[in-house]
Amino acid sequence: MNPDPDYSAAYVVIHTDAPDAHEGHGFAFTIGRGNDIQAAAIRALEPFLIGRPVEAILGDLGGIWRELVHDSQLRWLGPEKGVVHMAVSAVVNALWDLKAKRAGLPLWRLLAEMTPEQLVDLVDFRYLTDALTPGEALEILRRAEPGRAERTKHLLSHGYPAYTTSAGWLGYSDEKLTRLASEAVGDGFTLIKLKVGADLDDDLRRLRLAREVVGPDVRIALDANQRWDVGPAIEWMSAFLPYDPWWIEEPTSPDDILGHAAIRAAVAPVKVATGEHVQNRIVFKQLLQAGAIDVMQIDAARVGGVNENVANLLLAAKFGVPVCPHAGGVGLCELVQHLSMFDYVAVSGTMDDRVIEYVDHLHEHFVHPVDVHNGRYAAPQEPGFSAEIHAGTRTRHAYPDGPVWMSGGDAG
Amino acid sequence: MNPDPDYSAAYVVIHTDAPDAHEGHGFAFTIGRGNDIQAAAIRALEPFLIGRPVEAILGDLGGIWRELVHDSQLRWLGPEKGVVHMAVSAVVNALWDLKAKRAGLPLWRLLAEMTPEQLVDLVDFRYLTDALTPGEALEILRRAEPGRAERTKHLLSHGYPAYTTSAGWLGYSDEKLTRLASEAVGDGFTLIKLKVGADLDDDLRRLRLAREVVGPDVRIALDANQRWDVGPAIEWMSAFLPYDPWWIEEPTSPDDILGHAAIRAAVAPVKVATGEHVQNRIVFKQLLQAGAIDVMQIDAARVGGVNENVANLLLAAKFGVPVCPHAGGVGLCELVQHLSMFDYVAVSGTMDDRVIEYVDHLHEHFVHPVDVHNGRYAAPQEPGFSAEIHAGTRTRHAYPDGPVWMSGGDAG
Repeated sequence: MNPDPDYSAAYVVIHTDAPDAHEGHGFAFTIGRGNDIQAAAIRALEPFLIGRPVEAILGDLGGIWRELVHDSQLRWLGPEKGVVHMAVSAVVNALWDLKAKRAGLPLWRLLAEMTPEQLVDLVDFRYLTDALTPGEALEILRRAEPGRAERTKHLLSHGYPAYTTSAGWLGYSDEKLTRLASEAVGDGFTLIKLKVGADLDDDLRRLRLAREVVGPDVRIALDANQRWDVGPAIEWMSAFLPYDPWWIEEPTSPDDILGHAAIRAAVAPVKVATGEHVQNRIVFKQLLQAGAIDVMQIDAARVGGVNENVANLLLAAKFGVPVCPHAGGVGLCELVQHLSMFDYVAVSGTMDDRVIEYVDHLHEHFVHPVDVHNGRYAAPQEPGFSAEIHAGTRTRHAYPDGPVWMSGGDAG
Repeated sequence: MNPDPDYSAAYVVIHTDAPDAHEGHGFAFTIGRGNDIQAAAIRALEPFLIGRPVEAILGDLGGIWRELVHDSQLRWLGPEKGVVHMAVSAVVNALWDLKAKRAGLPLWRLLAEMTPEQLVDLVDFRYLTDALTPGEALEILRRAEPGRAERTKHLLSHGYPAYTTSAGWLGYSDEKLTRLASEAVGDGFTLIKLKVGADLDDDLRRLRLAREVVGPDVRIALDANQRWDVGPAIEWMSAFLPYDPWWIEEPTSPDDILGHAAIRAAVAPVKVATGEHVQNRIVFKQLLQAGAIDVMQIDAARVGGVNENVANLLLAAKFGVPVCPHAGGVGLCELVQHLSMFDYVAVSGTMDDRVIEYVDHLHEHFVHPVDVHNGRYAAPQEPGFSAEIHAGTRTRHAYPDGPVWMSGGDAG
């Protein structure tokens, strides 16, 4: 589905005139064309922030979220979806980065130290109350409160489980697939993921090879990247069953709640996972209500940023569905680790059947890159949301005037 | 929900170097802020068309649609929703305007004279086949084929039923409401619509007054513009029941398929209508599959233009649900009349329980404005999609350099 991605980002830096000189960094990840549309959408949000007192803004990020999302004129262009919502995400995440830096805490810890009442106040419950009320959210958070300190300690010592897609890209030779799958197991990963959906015979061969290499105990997830209609999804998955796949990810359109439910009913015991393209909490709510997913894959930069992902984590906890975030792209690993770690400490209270996607790509451009070893994400310790790209990278890759583009677009 | 709309449009003109000098006009309707994001998205589609042979493009509008919608990099920003999809709508509708002008036919008639096979070829069935296959679509169109000539004649003589929202805006005095409601009935409208959802007591008084004025036989539809969660929608509607409302429109989020289904089950016999903010055919499919709507309200410029609305009309026909398009805004009446008329002649074959929204606003800016009298839309006779705004209007209102803006934004 994404044959020629040109990994890009519409990047936000929020400056203040405070003496601490902290900046808030955020971005919307895109795959090339359209990055300028995304940048235009972010610029449209400037008037909501520029010149306002930073303490008031950072002290009421729930209120700011509502202001950005419910502006009636911008809302017309969604509502709460697509380019405008991704712009909200970039800006809201940049505000959280700034707030965490000023607090001297990594974001996961800043969130995990907020009271249940403060966390509930971040969430916009509009369109959620038939599935999750503020009172129920509060109850979930209060239930997790006594164990926070212990889980924080455990997280700092042991990290959070990761999985890898390194072996699974379409187009890799069988030799490369088996080598990388084997390396992944050696590196401590207990779940690997293969892309499927282009050619059934190829997929069957790749899946068989991977299963042979990793043995019966390593989980193999499959990712169809939205290629199928409901019927074909069920047909292809039945062919894959002998190789014991763990989940099928994005079997069809991310908008198709009922389609996912039909597929899930047909492919059990294989799990159904989706979410990287789910537009907002309202669709996640329905995926849960309809029994359409076994695994919720939040993305850090598509829904409306941290606030909406707090809503998503609470919804998942209410329905007892594990959250295994989508990552990769530009900086998505850096962001999303904070959300899973917050979930562990203060929401679901468990890592069972939970893994964060890991793609070993572009981390060198980040000031605080992820640290994944022994198949686990180490908990970030540096203040902020780990969102900041090196100034040099931003200058070199600035479009269209940066030296990388002026010299013909050489990636690096 | 839309307290301060500033009616706007991101406007497209497609020029060719053909000697006929015809232009294709299309637009995305916005309500102010964000119109420049919308314009940026339309510009991102220019490279797909500029310099290509017009006959090839217009001869394969199904293929062009797929090319625009499935471009993997732009698709990332949706997929198939929000700003990028609305840009596709503007461009695709402009291509249809051009094609109809070159054919010397109004769009409804151009479509209604295509073969069932040609019409099916316009539709992208991706993600639809669990509800509607190309074969089923063909069958629907073939069933309607024998009656086309007779229905065209009937349409040309009698027009198509309209309904009016003139009396129903929030903020009108009771005197103005009753006067306009009474005038609407005098003008031949058999369905009027009231906005609701801001204040229950106000709504009950307005609804009672309207019912007194129009009598028991004129239908009164209600429009909540997405204000409610599921619970409040059901509570408010139960209070309205004594006044026999015909439908409740947009009771909750346009993304909430299951919410609409729950509301519909609770408020029957009042009908549930939605669609002006429904993002694409995949959501319409599910609204039908879930039994969530009694009335499908397509919008001409939010989903991917004519092609996707052909899909929506076919889905509605398959499920036996009437289509009553959303209109108003800038030029939406002008566009959508063509789609309902095509539906009548070549798809559903009926006007029963079908009405096109009519708002008497801004028509003077169109080269071929709608002609609504005796409560009915007269069938357009002029070639094209009725999308063209007078050149003078476009110059005067161009943002930010047109004289209307330079002189302080005086509307007119």
